[in-house]
Amino acid sequence: MKEPISQDIKELQNLTEQHRPVLERAIQALHERTFFSQYPEHPSPAVYGEGADQAGLEKYQSLLGKPYEELLQSGAEGWAGQEESPYNQENLGITYPTFSVDTLVARGQAAFHVWRKLSPLERATILIESLERMKARFYEIAHATMHTTGQAFMMSFQASGPHAADRALEAIAAGYEEQTRFPEHQVWEKPMGKFNLKLNKSWKAVPKGLGLVVGCSTFPTWNTVPGMYASLVTGNPVIVKPHPKGVLPIAIVIAELQKVLVEYGLDPNICQLAVDPDDRLITKDLAEHEAIKLIDYTGGTSFGNYLEDLKGKTVFTEKAGVNSIILDSVEDLDKVVQNLAFSLTLYSGQMCTAPQNFFIPANGITVAGEQMPYEEVVAKLAEAVKGLVNNPKAGPHVLGAIQNPLTQQRVQDLEKGNGRSVLSTCDVANPGFANARICTPVIYEVEAAEKDLYSQELFGPIALIIKTKNTQESIQLAQEMAMQHGAISCGAYTTDPAVKEEIMDQMGLAGTPVSFNLTGGIYVNQNASFSDFHVTGGNPAGNASFTNPEFVIKRFTWVGFREPAAN
Amino acid sequence: MKEPISQDIKELQNLTEQHRPVLERAIQALHERTFFSQYPEHPSPAVYGEGADQAGLEKYQSLLGKPYEELLQSGAEGWAGQEESPYNQENLGITYPTFSVDTLVARGQAAFHVWRKLSPLERATILIESLERMKARFYEIAHATMHTTGQAFMMSFQASGPHAADRALEAIAAGYEEQTRFPEHQVWEKPMGKFNLKLNKSWKAVPKGLGLVVGCSTFPTWNTVPGMYASLVTGNPVIVKPHPKGVLPIAIVIAELQKVLVEYGLDPNICQLAVDPDDRLITKDLAEHEAIKLIDYTGGTSFGNYLEDLKGKTVFTEKAGVNSIILDSVEDLDKVVQNLAFSLTLYSGQMCTAPQNFFIPANGITVAGEQMPYEEVVAKLAEAVKGLVNNPKAGPHVLGAIQNPLTQQRVQDLEKGNGRSVLSTCDVANPGFANARICTPVIYEVEAAEKDLYSQELFGPIALIIKTKNTQESIQLAQEMAMQHGAISCGAYTTDPAVKEEIMDQMGLAGTPVSFNLTGGIYVNQNASFSDFHVTGGNPAGNASFTNPEFVIKRFTWVGFREPAAN
Repeated sequence: MKEPISQDIKELQNLTEQHRPVLERAIQALHERTFFSQYPEHPSPAVYGEGADQAGLEKYQSLLGKPYEELLQSGAEGWAGQEESPYNQENLGITYPTFSVDTLVARGQAAFHVWRKLSPLERATILIESLERMKARFYEIAHATMHTTGQAFMMSFQASGPHAADRALEAIAAGYEEQTRFPEHQVWEKPMGKFNLKLNKSWKAVPKGLGLVVGCSTFPTWNTVPGMYASLVTGNPVIVKPHPKGVLPIAIVIAELQKVLVEYGLDPNICQLAVDPDDRLITKDLAEHEAIKLIDYTGGTSFGNYLEDLKGKTVFTEKAGVNSIILDSVEDLDKVVQNLAFSLTLYSGQMCTAPQNFFIPANGITVAGEQMPYEEVVAKLAEAVKGLVNNPKAGPHVLGAIQNPLTQQRVQDLEKGNGRSVLSTCDVANPGFANARICTPVIYEVEAAEKDLYSQELFGPIALIIKTKNTQESIQLAQEMAMQHGAISCGAYTTDPAVKEEIMDQMGLAGTPVSFNLTGGIYVNQNASFSDFHVTGGNPAGNASFTNPEFVIKRFTWVGFREPAAN
Repeated sequence: MKEPISQDIKELQNLTEQHRPVLERAIQALHERTFFSQYPEHPSPAVYGEGADQAGLEKYQSLLGKPYEELLQSGAEGWAGQEESPYNQENLGITYPTFSVDTLVARGQAAFHVWRKLSPLERATILIESLERMKARFYEIAHATMHTTGQAFMMSFQASGPHAADRALEAIAAGYEEQTRFPEHQVWEKPMGKFNLKLNKSWKAVPKGLGLVVGCSTFPTWNTVPGMYASLVTGNPVIVKPHPKGVLPIAIVIAELQKVLVEYGLDPNICQLAVDPDDRLITKDLAEHEAIKLIDYTGGTSFGNYLEDLKGKTVFTEKAGVNSIILDSVEDLDKVVQNLAFSLTLYSGQMCTAPQNFFIPANGITVAGEQMPYEEVVAKLAEAVKGLVNNPKAGPHVLGAIQNPLTQQRVQDLEKGNGRSVLSTCDVANPGFANARICTPVIYEVEAAEKDLYSQELFGPIALIIKTKNTQESIQLAQEMAMQHGAISCGAYTTDPAVKEEIMDQMGLAGTPVSFNLTGGIYVNQNASFSDFHVTGGNPAGNASFTNPEFVIKRFTWVGFREPAAN
């Protein structure tokens, strides 16, 4: 445990002045919800420097096959690593220091009493500085993400780099704002007739304690940094337990944060990386440890439910969902199916926001005022997907690769299952990686009555067309799926204002955001930081939202103090 | 289910203009946390009208021995009532309409689809109007409170009338503010180089559904209205299940609210009173019903824990706590013990904020710079209590009466228990009520090592003096009690700034507010609306706080909608 010394604090004040405008701009953005991004999403040399791409690639390559030694957590108790690239299906050969649960917790607890004593502004300053350092490594993080998640390069860059950093800044801004919504000190003076009762009062936002952040394999930084930075800005040290298959991208982020902490005289264990030893997963041991007060989790439903049920913890989850598309009426069906085909194909359906259930009335939909038969709509969607995946200039770069062999297996197993196949999977070659694990989307048709076939998440490039009696039934089923099984996104196509109103009302009750009539360059899978809340917390897909006030205020306790004041 | 008609909406707009300044003033007060009260606490004819006291008493008396027919819930399925006055130990003879759980839930669900469609401002307006109507009945509510809870008249008036109405307004203001923190509509425009992506976006605060509010016997309105109004302002209808021994005060409040709802064309079942049939308690059936999404509860720990563990509910609790007084150093011990004696005696220790555990170092405390022996400090405290309870002009009016015979029993049973008695209970006559159930405070001494004797709430007029090694041990034990068994208040006396800092730090970590060096007319038991958060939510005494943002935002879900906009 290291207390900051006075010179460090002076330097921290300088840094605060430097980052305060960013913090204030971010808070403003949270409330305006217009477009705002602190970290440009385009990998442009003008922003990120000439040659940064190549340098990032080389830096990434230099890390392969070695122990990762950049973290400032001392005294490794072991080394472990089992990451594998979906692009060449080979082990990255990187090992990370491992620590026992007791070591991690003891260090975290010691760090708590340093970190909690900084002001919210001081913490926000340190954290924003860490994002600036992260920015300098976006390319390297992008390659690390590509070769752990299977995302194509552009998504790897954007999702793990600027989009993640924006979401982290969002959490910092929200946490800072909430901790400063009540006065630090106030004089309370109550008129009692002949005299006044006068008290000096003060209030503190007291952090809850040690946080655990459990990452997932498909978005190792994007889904980790909101909880990590939300706990940190509110004064809680964190232990980040990445998915064993997706460590490097977040290890780089944590290494940068640890360097900033040490530079300002603080304990690097304020943010620890906790990699599982190869022979043993440690998430449950960590989660159940009584010192762990906060848990952030992204991953499967059953483990998420187990975490939510732990006693004495504040738990934030993003689990699985069944996302719906409701087709009622459109102006230009070609544009619609192109948009939907992209959403289905993007990262091979491995996004939590990817659509799965497409509800189409049995008598078809209205296209530019004319009724188009159901079969034709289905055929057009299948054609659009086929066209996209077989376009050599687009297909491989949209599809990326499959992170987990089980996802590929799931697609294959479906062929033995129920439903009528509309589109089979096919082989597509990736021009850069001959041995990439690739699997194009499949589409199956099912009846509305066959609920067991479509009432669970089929993670991966799998779409189900559900034939309904009419749009009313489509809405009712989409709502039911969201309420009972969770949903993170919903797309709806209608030209009828009354139907639109009804969908907003019914899906709103199911805690599901709706994108209407998307065509062109914006997709149901995409959520913008500072504008779109990601997951609502209002259905079984997750109990937390990036970043509504609840996501930060549950991490601390308002405590008041008072004492008589001289009259 | 009744939808508001257009004329009602016009009238509602007029009412909104009338109440908007109150709403805005209340939001300002929430953030300033200086003294603010909308409802004057002094029962003064200048404020409440000449003769209002006598009229309120007569109105109360006119209700005795009859069915209570003022509620607008139609078609009673039965009648029940078992209230008894602690002042004469006789049944009030009032019966209330009862309804099956199915009826209550069905009506609540129908009302949901009316109430949720009003805007937050419309709901806040209706609710503030109900408080204005409640204000006209403060005296009547005071007598009803006196004869159900045993509170003395002044506390009955203040706690159940103006203080409760202020806490209700606080919840309305906080709920309104949180629902309006993000824009209803916004244009989001993202520069894409040659063109802009442009979306119309909107956000809704979607209420969670039906709320259940479970009241307690000692503060039937004060502890009920925060949850009730917090759920209502955020669009959730409520079913209020009062304690069978404390119905009338809240029945009057609900009757007034129902009248306002009907006047503005709304369904009175937006707020239902649910009295238990005499032969069967219905709280569990209600709480476990899947339609109930929100639960507010004040009462014992084991039932509170059961509610907190229910799946699929958002639960707000205030349970039991073990409140500490830490004595380290004082300027004027006489003033201190008078203050503490009052806190112990007030409503015979039946307040959730009443102190129980008094930590005093074995070598005594510093009084005006001189060391005073432990025994002398204890003796002075006991003398002060004796002096207060035996003062015929003060004692009976501070003590009130004992709500529950079990509380009296607990005091008597202690005599057979452990610890050395410092002060026994005694008989005090109430000048107005010869048959009042009265029990003056008892004080026992225990050793710091005898943790099992002081690590639970001993509800009622019971104080334990715990002899510690030193103030450090006092602080450590007070913190441990709060962390493990909960605490709602803490009083500390020290003239040493370093000790004060240490107490703030340690009790802050235990989520316990601290009042320092109180003497004169302000007591550790008292919490001011709009300034003191009541319960922090940060220890086992309860998971909710009146009224921090968490108390309201967990009652709704932010859901976003978006659609391409014309460029």
